[in-house]
Amino acid sequence: MQAELLLHPQWIVPVDAADSLLTDHSLAVSDGRIQALLPTPEARAHIRAVRELELPGHALIPGLINAHTHAPMVLLRGLADDLPLMTWLHKHIWPAEQRWADPEFVRAGTRLAALEMLKSGTICFNDMYFFAEVTAKVAAAAGMRAVAGMILVDLPTRFADAPEEYLRKGLDLHDRYRDHALIRTAFAPHATYSVSDGPCERIRTLSDELDVPIHIHLHEAHDEIVQSLRDYGERPLARLERLGLLGPNLVAVHMTQLEDPEIAALVRANAHVVHCPESNLKLANGFCPVARLLDAGVNVALGTDGAASNNDLDMMGELQTAALLAKGVAGSPAALPAHTALRMATLNGARALGIDAETGSLERGKSADMVALDLRDPDTQPVYNPVSQIVYAAGRDQVQQVWVAGRHLIRDGEPTTLDQAAILDEARAWGTRISAASR
Amino acid sequence: MQAELLLHPQWIVPVDAADSLLTDHSLAVSDGRIQALLPTPEARAHIRAVRELELPGHALIPGLINAHTHAPMVLLRGLADDLPLMTWLHKHIWPAEQRWADPEFVRAGTRLAALEMLKSGTICFNDMYFFAEVTAKVAAAAGMRAVAGMILVDLPTRFADAPEEYLRKGLDLHDRYRDHALIRTAFAPHATYSVSDGPCERIRTLSDELDVPIHIHLHEAHDEIVQSLRDYGERPLARLERLGLLGPNLVAVHMTQLEDPEIAALVRANAHVVHCPESNLKLANGFCPVARLLDAGVNVALGTDGAASNNDLDMMGELQTAALLAKGVAGSPAALPAHTALRMATLNGARALGIDAETGSLERGKSADMVALDLRDPDTQPVYNPVSQIVYAAGRDQVQQVWVAGRHLIRDGEPTTLDQAAILDEARAWGTRISAASR
Repeated sequence: MQAELLLHPQWIVPVDAADSLLTDHSLAVSDGRIQALLPTPEARAHIRAVRELELPGHALIPGLINAHTHAPMVLLRGLADDLPLMTWLHKHIWPAEQRWADPEFVRAGTRLAALEMLKSGTICFNDMYFFAEVTAKVAAAAGMRAVAGMILVDLPTRFADAPEEYLRKGLDLHDRYRDHALIRTAFAPHATYSVSDGPCERIRTLSDELDVPIHIHLHEAHDEIVQSLRDYGERPLARLERLGLLGPNLVAVHMTQLEDPEIAALVRANAHVVHCPESNLKLANGFCPVARLLDAGVNVALGTDGAASNNDLDMMGELQTAALLAKGVAGSPAALPAHTALRMATLNGARALGIDAETGSLERGKSADMVALDLRDPDTQPVYNPVSQIVYAAGRDQVQQVWVAGRHLIRDGEPTTLDQAAILDEARAWGTRISAASR
Repeated sequence: MQAELLLHPQWIVPVDAADSLLTDHSLAVSDGRIQALLPTPEARAHIRAVRELELPGHALIPGLINAHTHAPMVLLRGLADDLPLMTWLHKHIWPAEQRWADPEFVRAGTRLAALEMLKSGTICFNDMYFFAEVTAKVAAAAGMRAVAGMILVDLPTRFADAPEEYLRKGLDLHDRYRDHALIRTAFAPHATYSVSDGPCERIRTLSDELDVPIHIHLHEAHDEIVQSLRDYGERPLARLERLGLLGPNLVAVHMTQLEDPEIAALVRANAHVVHCPESNLKLANGFCPVARLLDAGVNVALGTDGAASNNDLDMMGELQTAALLAKGVAGSPAALPAHTALRMATLNGARALGIDAETGSLERGKSADMVALDLRDPDTQPVYNPVSQIVYAAGRDQVQQVWVAGRHLIRDGEPTTLDQAAILDEARAWGTRISAASR
């Protein structure tokens, strides 16, 4: 048998239905797709590969999927921290965005974010920001996957004046990337408090027609619930249900405020939840009941949120935080076991974004989107169970190799498609400019 | 002026009383002590140093202090996870310790732990384990600081048969290290449920005489409170107060179960609390009210706990978890700001261990115990506030240089006093042996 690429890691964690852990197995890639997973002696005997890579002490896992972020906001990382929520938003983040968030900001920010994400094992990100056409272009050029958000808010911004303009620009983007191998689009109404009923209904119709996810901040904070009850006489999820948006295309981000009937409604609708533990903690927004959602049968994915409220885009760290925090919140050390946490950061993200036929697990026929983690470092030795080490002890620095569609994007820890020095120079220049103006 | 070593970092975070952040300052070291902090142009003009190091884009911080761990348990890292607490302890951890925890296990484990800790910026650890004389020897040989626990439990173990033998061995250790530059000792009664009144009172007398800390697990879990109420008719802290142990030498680890009068009692006693957020989450033991303790005036330090319940000894990660979790628990994004979190991981640890005259901050006359973090990586760019980047975004991989008492223990990320290859070989051999026996 012929292959383009043949990998011999010590362990493979495919994140398949059986929670398999393969030892001494190899993985073969052809045409950018996973061709076979088979015992290493067999692979060595029967597969002739153009390139072969020995990965002793490494675990091969599916590429991580950051199911909620605002990539360009890395340029505001650490600009304002440790502040009350409204001070943070109204005095710092929104004014900075209003002043700076132009296409050039989005380009420089997304390049920095893509570099950070690829180096820490993230192969796909679900983004919500202005000028998403720039984000899509940067991701495609880097060779990584992205779901570019067709953002919509009621208010005018530098990007668009009114809902119709947001939508028109979004649909243009959708059309441009309709058949792209790496880039998808999703409707991205910002939140129920920032989008009124009309645009919501319009998005619902379009989402049904085009079968595109609806990516929205939902039940992020207690105040959001209070405000919705005051303005609409119903909680935000109930309002979305009334407007027809609660369905299998709904990707509801945060969900820290949930009542039991709401969990049941999510299950009935086959809707998806994206958990962003570090952002929820940092903004003190409450605790998403992850174990209860998973037990009820809701598909829960994982995201970092933007770097202004995290402050990194490191899914390895987010994975660890999610696995630990879910136990504390559930009051059970058996809640969210390591393998389930890893599924949240991979396959569940792919399901939420409607790309699980393509990515999210290491299975025959899927795109070769893979990460090799070197577990030989002191902090992950000895290894009794590589999945435990990956979730509870490994760090982003152990991400050594990353492939998307079989293309080697991170080789021995270094990017092959992104110019790190140029990106960092640009980021520093933005930092200097924004700092100077904030004084 | 003459100096042994002169450092030119971009930023210095001394963790002093004023929460200073020094830009373009240099630090001079002589005789292993901090001789001066001064503006870089002045330093370049007036100080002649044997060695001079440029650290562009680096932040220099005090070495981190891990105020609670069981270092040798790294050899059990990931052996058993995601299990109910009692199954984890009774079926896995305790049997493994009973079988394996001999001096050779402690030696190999502490060497691996010291390597992991130094590489992630920890210069001192407060340890509680059997055969602490071995731990002390390994730490001293590595050139790092340790507080070796004079452990005591009622039950016989491989280390000692009865409280008197534990105490005798502990006091031998104390005498041996009485004047050591790097090693201190602390009494380490395991917990109130495992040590009866007699030995507690004996420790209290000795602690008063010798002015040595008393390092104990306290109010770690709800069951511990229930059991104490049943067996003693009082909560564990009340029992320690009755026995005279609640005082300025008390280093109370965990404290997830606290009532307001107990916080007041800690304040009155000038007792110290060690917060271990990742362990508390992983074992689902509850949430330490860190912000309330700090507001009340309690000295709160930070620890990783042992690697069996974390699963790493990474204080950079613990710092981030602590800063995020405290906000979620307090319901305020302004709780535990970055500078305070960094103080918990440095100076507060030194205070708890009674070594704050020697270490814990970068101030003239203190030991040159320092860590240089390279903030030029994508995940910490751009830099608006280096303290925010250190706490919320930096990882252990950004620890590039570590000094203890002016000795360069980590140079460009690599250890100078520990043989990494040999330590990892040994750790793997232990892993193989323990795995084989667990099957």
